[in-house]
This record gives sequence, structure tokens and C-alpha cells, in this order.
Amino acid sequence: MKQPVDLLIKNAGQLLTMAGHSGRPKLGDELNDLGLVTGGAVAALEGKIVKVGKTGEVESSVELLPHARVVDAWGKVVMPCFVDPHTHVVFAGSREAEFELRLKGATYLEIHQAGGGILSSVRATLRATFGELAETARRRLDRLLQQGVGTVEIKSGYALTVEGEIRMLEVVKHLAKNHPLDLVPTFLGAHSFPAEYKERRDEFVDLVCREMIPRVAEAGLAEFCDVFCDQGVFSVEQAEAILETGKKHGLLPVIHADEIAPMGAAELAARVGAVSASHLLKVSNLGMEMMAGKGVIAVLLPGTAFFLMEPFAPARKMIEAGVAVALSTDRNPGSSPTESMQLIITLACLQMKMTPAEALAAATINAAHALRRAHLVGSLEEGKQADILVMEAPDYRYIPYHFGVNLVESVYKRGRKVV
Amino acid sequence: MKQPVDLLIKNAGQLLTMAGHSGRPKLGDELNDLGLVTGGAVAALEGKIVKVGKTGEVESSVELLPHARVVDAWGKVVMPCFVDPHTHVVFAGSREAEFELRLKGATYLEIHQAGGGILSSVRATLRATFGELAETARRRLDRLLQQGVGTVEIKSGYALTVEGEIRMLEVVKHLAKNHPLDLVPTFLGAHSFPAEYKERRDEFVDLVCREMIPRVAEAGLAEFCDVFCDQGVFSVEQAEAILETGKKHGLLPVIHADEIAPMGAAELAARVGAVSASHLLKVSNLGMEMMAGKGVIAVLLPGTAFFLMEPFAPARKMIEAGVAVALSTDRNPGSSPTESMQLIITLACLQMKMTPAEALAAATINAAHALRRAHLVGSLEEGKQADILVMEAPDYRYIPYHFGVNLVESVYKRGRKVV
Repeated sequence: MKQPVDLLIKNAGQLLTMAGHSGRPKLGDELNDLGLVTGGAVAALEGKIVKVGKTGEVESSVELLPHARVVDAWGKVVMPCFVDPHTHVVFAGSREAEFELRLKGATYLEIHQAGGGILSSVRATLRATFGELAETARRRLDRLLQQGVGTVEIKSGYALTVEGEIRMLEVVKHLAKNHPLDLVPTFLGAHSFPAEYKERRDEFVDLVCREMIPRVAEAGLAEFCDVFCDQGVFSVEQAEAILETGKKHGLLPVIHADEIAPMGAAELAARVGAVSASHLLKVSNLGMEMMAGKGVIAVLLPGTAFFLMEPFAPARKMIEAGVAVALSTDRNPGSSPTESMQLIITLACLQMKMTPAEALAAATINAAHALRRAHLVGSLEEGKQADILVMEAPDYRYIPYHFGVNLVESVYKRGRKVV
Repeated sequence: MKQPVDLLIKNAGQLLTMAGHSGRPKLGDELNDLGLVTGGAVAALEGKIVKVGKTGEVESSVELLPHARVVDAWGKVVMPCFVDPHTHVVFAGSREAEFELRLKGATYLEIHQAGGGILSSVRATLRATFGELAETARRRLDRLLQQGVGTVEIKSGYALTVEGEIRMLEVVKHLAKNHPLDLVPTFLGAHSFPAEYKERRDEFVDLVCREMIPRVAEAGLAEFCDVFCDQGVFSVEQAEAILETGKKHGLLPVIHADEIAPMGAAELAARVGAVSASHLLKVSNLGMEMMAGKGVIAVLLPGTAFFLMEPFAPARKMIEAGVAVALSTDRNPGSSPTESMQLIITLACLQMKMTPAEALAAATINAAHALRRAHLVGSLEEGKQADILVMEAPDYRYIPYHFGVNLVESVYKRGRKVV
């Protein structure tokens, strides 16, 4: 019997299924296997993929419903929507003045310690209304969607008060109901120390553990718990306390690790069984080995290294060490003001020497694993969401190659054309 | 008497006039003076600017015609369209396979000498029909326009035969008649040596000088004559012969200079009185001094250095030496496949340590000077073309800061809304 479908995208120059490996993230050489089908097609019904393969095979096994949309993707790349597993899109204000200061030589840490940096976004965010936060974040989500992203993680962390952090996550909840993107909320109360806790840091850690985490978890406002574990921010001991508390309350641990200095944060990620560790510019060899051993996914953020003019994370070493690598924009107002996963992929190739295939897999299926969403998104496989991109590109390698512009021709989100 | 106008853009958060300096390119500290007007307005009639200033002043001195368009640019940056003074947008094929090779370590010169690089685009271009060349170039021009560019220089150089080079310039002529962008044609027959002239290079230089240049000049198909003067390509002597021949035929000299090695090409640019010299990654101190002395504009192409993973041109040293600096995409299929002047500006800031103001001036008024179009475009001044951008940016520094995406809200080309 033929399967009824309401969406058929066919004749793709290259269809990249990104088909997974028995439910695991892609590792090592697997990253170069994009499940490429020449002249491929994908068919969906009511937002779910029902058939993927050669156009002839797919056409002969499906029946177009009367209202079905048929798209000819001749000469184009068809692939799953990008998944962006690390963002901070809810915030007020912008920090172009600080950008200019950095160009003149001020470091991130100097700006941070002078009360600029994250704390300036905290001040602006605390002053903004719920509506302002939702509206400015919505515009950033619109840009992410236009750039081909289908699923976005969003962190709190620009309030650093109990009520303020909860409000940020309520903004995410509100947006999740009102935006075509799938949103994944992460609690990041431990993003920085508020000015008033500068001299009593452990008290702030207590506040995070005793008040924020229980309130956030009870209200069901987050899936993940994150902490900025680095020089000048949260120590390994403080981070461990926060992540273990999160775990007790059902929040999956993730971590900002070893961005500024080799702190042993990657090692901590492995010890606490974190789903992912982000940044890792200064990760140690031991940290990499431990991450590989425990299956902690490395979420690499080359836009941040680019914008902060720092050496990039050692992606090749990590891939060779057997660490699963994902990519993300790190969209935030201080260190990575971009919504372009496409430029992130270009940077991954040019600056971290990832192959185009590795970078594309890292931005889709492995990023989905980093959000525990690989059963739903990140690849074009039967039963998954019909989150599909049609790219103005004759070859997958063209995506990082033709850089700095948006090659997305159209975006299908749960089978519906949204761009 | 009030001046009638058919376009009024008012209440700009920041209006950047980029007003010039007595007909000269901006030098040194002048680059940081953007002619910024808070709450500014610009009014135009039939494609020409008639009034620029504070919104109140402009409104009180103009009269809106019945069909006039009025645009409120509250909270936005209003500025002249970008000018892109160095591109190769007419070509066939794409080179993403070569990109992947380069990621694995092959150098530009190695690929070039192996018959890849420019010569692979030459083969594809010679095989393509006039219609194919025009249609693919048109799409690139559309992207440039969407990215805020109003005037584009286009070089020949992917044919390297007499008829082929003429055909490329005829494609440019055809596009100039059929596209809203203003196009400036440059003859670059000396872009590379064709395979069959590999062992008799001087004969090819003769062909360029004796046949190509006279034919191109007589047909009025180019304004500028360019040559790729570098290691492995045209020597200083060969380049001098070509540029001097061009001058005799009324073609203004410009040059691809010192990209791969310090050849003395910048010095040659000064000696022959070139309008501009491009690339300059390896320019010598003497070359800079001579360029400053003769007023040769440095057209810097940070997208190319970024994409080739080469050290960037010494922009700060050039600015300090009194060289006028302009920016360009270098849009081409091998070393800079991008249409984003916005990303070029970001790269200029991050990688060449130009200030946001310097980079914006370099991408507008100084780029207009590099094309001898500063009397028409590159700044918002009375009598000039109404080539105007409205940018989704609260501050001019936001333009390089919010990177990798297109901040253009709308483009007015000769007073007409085209994006």
C-alpha cells in the first residue's frame, strides 16, 4: 500500500540524510558519511518524515494527497535543518561599544572584571520588560530560522537573581509557544557573579543551589543546568556543586568549559556525566580523553573565538581522540553576535580544519545529540520531524565555501514551509 | 523657496553622510569622521540628493511631491550604499572541491601551478554561453545589492583570449543595461597565463598589449586596465608594459599587487600612477611610502586573506603611512566567494584592527574614489546619487559587531527602493 504524504521534496542534487549511527553521535570518520543520496527525495505527512531515498523509489512508494506540496530541488542540496545547541538569545541591549574597546586591545576578562561584559547585559536585561525581552529575542529567533536553524537551545543567565532568572526562562516558554522554532531551555544562573556577591562568591553558589535550581526545576522551566566554569568565574568545586544539585532536581548537566584557561572543567564534565561541554579553547589532553571516555559532546563555538580573536578550539585533536563534536553559534551580545550557522561552519573549516562534511554533521545530527533531541531532529530519517532545508548549493561543500551570505532557499519546519 | 522632493528618509538614529574632503579620499584620522548626524534626514528628487542634515532642517526646506515616499528610520543607521571596487563576478563554475583541497594543506600557488585555480575557472568560462555567464553573474549582483552594495567594479580575466575577454566585458555591458547596480568594467586580460603560453609568457604579454587592449579600448568596453603582478604570475616588467599600454589607450591603471610575495608591485603602482593597488598582503615599507606619495589607493580584500588563511594586509601601517585605504569583497570563485561587504567590514575590524568608522569609510567614500566615482556615490551629499542604505542597526559600530548576517533593511538606488 502506498503511503499518503502532504510534502514531497524531490530530485535534490544532493540529499544529505545525516542518518545516525545506532542512536550515537557521529564519531571520527563517521562524521564524513553524510548519507548522501544523489537525486534524492524526502516525503512527509503531517510534519513527520515517512520516506527518504532516491526520487524514483520515494515517488513509487508514496501517494500525494490532494493538498500536497511538491518541491523540485534539482541542482540543490536538501538536508536537515541546523540545530543550534548553545545560545543566549534572550537579553536586552547590545555591546558594540565594548567591541570597539576590544579592537583597541582590552581583553574579555579585563572588560568582565571592570563590570562590563556579561554584567552590562545583566543590567540591561533586569531593566527590560517581559515584552521587550520577548520581542527582541523573537527577532533573533527569526534570523536563526531564516539562516536554516530548526531547533535552538536558549540559556538564562542575564539576570542572576531568583526572580530574574525565572523571568528569562518564562520568556523562553512564551516564545516556545509562539514561534515555529523548537526551543530547548537551559538554566544558567551561574553565568557570572552579580556585583553584590563579588566578595562572597560561595553565597551566590548557595543561592543558585538552594533557591534558583529548585524553583526552576519545580516550575519545569529548564531541561539543562549549565555553569560558566573558568578562570575568574566559577571554580571547578563551585561548578560541581551546581551541576550535582541540578542533577538531583532532574536537570541534565552541561558546562561552559576551559574557554579562558585550562581549569579542569572538561574533566569535571566527564566526572559529573555532562551531556555536553562548550567552548574548550584551552581543553587539556586529559580533559579530551575523559570526555571521549564518558561520551561528553564537545560543543564548539568558532564564532566566539573569531570574535574574541582567540586561538580556536582543537577540533581535530578532539575528533582524533574520539570526542563527539557539535557546532553552535553561541549567539550572545558580548562574544558572538551572530545567528549564522553557515558562517560557523565556514569558520569550523577554515580555522579548525574540519572537513565540510564533518562541520555539517556537527551542525545537525551531533548538535541534536547535544540537546538529547536526536530521536526527533538532526537527520532525515523515517519517523523524525520534517525539519528540512533546501540550500542554494550544487554540492554540500559549497555551503562553507560560498561564505558570509545566506544560502538557504527555503525552510520546512515540521513539514510546513516557514521561509 | 522650498525644494520639491520625491524621497525623504528621516529621523535616522544615526545618519552617516561620509562627506568627503575636498574631493580627496579620506586619510588618517579623517577616516574616523563619518559626518554623523543624530536624528538625520536625507531628501532626494529624481534620484539625486537635494538636502542632507538634521530632520527638522531638512523637513523645513523641502516640499514633498504628491507621490513622494517618506521613510521613518527611527533607531536605525542611514548611510550611503557600499561601493565594491574589486570583483570578478562574471565566471562559470564553482570551486568548492579546490576549497576542500586547500583545507587539507594545498596552497593557492600549488593549485594554480597544477592548472587548477584561475585556469579551471577559465576553462569553465570559455565553455559557458553568453546567456549562462550573464545569468549567473546577475544572481551574484542581486546578492551584492541585497547586501547593500550600490556600485560594483567587474573585471574580465577568465577567458585570456582576445574574443573571450571581449565577450566577458560584453556580458558586463549587457548587465549594466539590465541591472539596478552601477557597474564599472575593468580589463584584466593579464589575470593569468593561459596553459598554451606557459613557456612563452612574453608572447602572451604581447597579445594583451597589441591585440586585447586596443580592441577593448576601441570598443569602449573598459575604464580600467588591471594586471596580476605577483610571484608566479606577471613580473613587474610585464605588468609595467601592460599598464603603460593601457594608459596609451585611455585605460586607467590598477593592479593586483604583492598578494603572494613582495614583488615591488606597489612601487610599480606608484611609478605608473595607478588609481589603486589591491591585495598588498606582502607590501614593502617602500611600496607603502610610494603609494602614499602618489595617492595610490590601497584596495584591501580581507575576505581573501581570511579564505586563503593568509596573514592580512597591514592596514594600520598603511593608514599611518598616509595611504588611502578602501575595502572590497574581491568576489571571485577561488579566493573570495562572498558578496558580503558587511562581513568584509567585520574582518577589517577584527583582523586588520581598523576601527568600525575607518572600515565604513573605506567601504563607501574611499571605495568610490578607487573607482573615480566619488563625485557620484560613496557619500550622502547634495548633488550626488541617492544611493542610500537603511540598516537595522542602532549605531554604526553595530554594523561590524552583529556579524555574519545581513543587516540591510532597505536599499534605495538612485532614489528608488530596490530592496
